[in-house]
Amino acid sequence: MTTEFLVNQIKQKKSFLCIGLDTDLDKIPLHLLEEEDPIFSFNKAIIDATHDVCVAYKPNIAFYEAYGLQGWQALEKTMAYLNENHPEIFTIADAKRGDIGNTSTRYAKAFFETLNFDSITVAPYMGKDSVEPFLTFEDKHTILLALTSNEGAFDFQTRMLEQKELYKEVLLTSSRYKNSENLMYVIGATKASYLAEIRKIVPNSFFLVPGVGAQGGSLEEVCKYGMNDQIGLLVNSSRGILYASKDEKFDQSARKEALKLQKEMENYLQR
Amino acid sequence: MTTEFLVNQIKQKKSFLCIGLDTDLDKIPLHLLEEEDPIFSFNKAIIDATHDVCVAYKPNIAFYEAYGLQGWQALEKTMAYLNENHPEIFTIADAKRGDIGNTSTRYAKAFFETLNFDSITVAPYMGKDSVEPFLTFEDKHTILLALTSNEGAFDFQTRMLEQKELYKEVLLTSSRYKNSENLMYVIGATKASYLAEIRKIVPNSFFLVPGVGAQGGSLEEVCKYGMNDQIGLLVNSSRGILYASKDEKFDQSARKEALKLQKEMENYLQR
Repeated sequence: MTTEFLVNQIKQKKSFLCIGLDTDLDKIPLHLLEEEDPIFSFNKAIIDATHDVCVAYKPNIAFYEAYGLQGWQALEKTMAYLNENHPEIFTIADAKRGDIGNTSTRYAKAFFETLNFDSITVAPYMGKDSVEPFLTFEDKHTILLALTSNEGAFDFQTRMLEQKELYKEVLLTSSRYKNSENLMYVIGATKASYLAEIRKIVPNSFFLVPGVGAQGGSLEEVCKYGMNDQIGLLVNSSRGILYASKDEKFDQSARKEALKLQKEMENYLQR
Repeated sequence: MTTEFLVNQIKQKKSFLCIGLDTDLDKIPLHLLEEEDPIFSFNKAIIDATHDVCVAYKPNIAFYEAYGLQGWQALEKTMAYLNENHPEIFTIADAKRGDIGNTSTRYAKAFFETLNFDSITVAPYMGKDSVEPFLTFEDKHTILLALTSNEGAFDFQTRMLEQKELYKEVLLTSSRYKNSENLMYVIGATKASYLAEIRKIVPNSFFLVPGVGAQGGSLEEVCKYGMNDQIGLLVNSSRGILYASKDEKFDQSARKEALKLQKEMENYLQR
């Protein structure tokens, strides 16, 4: 998917909501456990109930891998369902991959080709030749971890690397990688006050912002400091939407939560 | 597997060789492609031919994910084969994972429980709460990326974070994590001259050393500067062993290459 198409979708839907598909068999409604593939059934119901109020889905790959073959199969089915029925939806493999060149190429193939994701999250620690293999795929996007939303972000990311905080060096250095137009960045919502500075370093890039909802970030702050003239934001919520209720109407509860965020977004988009 | 058991295996086998199972359908002998599961058939043949000269196997997870369900299945079968026939072998999921707490827990379950790996490689970028979930599993080991063997390592890892190079900060900071006795580190063999300094910071930890062979590191240097009184080394070779020949006797060619490294190791172990 091109960035232009994504921006148009955001404007049409008045939403830059990304829904994280962190599907957990311990949390989904009990009646789904009787189905042949409960993970896929849950995802399908969530997608059916929310696809018109969000622009992206983000399966968290760990949740699928934890169920082994069954999980991988559910992931394939979810992606096939999305690709077939909602090609307008931007898909994010939240995989946090990154390895030496030939291995990164494999991961890129796994997620961009085999599963046909539009994008993948990648860790920057191994540097240029671990990131660039992802960037060679046309109209595919690589979302680099920059400033994450967890407490551990303060272990290294916010510390000074030579004259600059490490995460700013990640932004600067990666923006000089080959095909860097295919880069987006993970920016933790819980550190919205950092956003203004980050925007100065990478004015044109899209940010994937986790941590609104369960992790407690403020959507208003994120929009105030993070939005650019192409919007440039995808804001993710996972648990807050997926597990809004555990009864037979879980999909409608999920829709209600998604709609709440979309309405708030619509408001900020009009400002 | 306990560290003590691993050390005993190294002493018994006079080898600290780890064989990377980067199994690539484009590189395996053609006659295997006719088999029902060529990836597993290749792995099984390599394992049968080399298990007595190495102490560890390291499937590179990217290579399996690139083949989707088929790849995941081959990985499960490989691990089942190893667990059943060679429980004495230390297994490493080369996965380079790491994410916020509840997601890292999922990855830990996927690799430590579902697939029953003894260890997993993890990226440190997201800090403490992304690493500690892996460390809570008893007799399972977390191999943290410290100084990797690729060119991109110089993008961030070797640069100064406050007073210290980033990778040294990773070593120091992580050694204060809870259950840090379960930590090992990835140390790129191509930077063997750094090893003496690294050993001072983490004298007791095991190092997984990639990059001997195809990536061009020197085994002698690694041993000279990296070995401690519990050996403390696992040296990996992937392509140099796996693809030593492409004919029907590929497994014996693989064995020959593995044996060559083992003999060299035996020599350094006796010094």
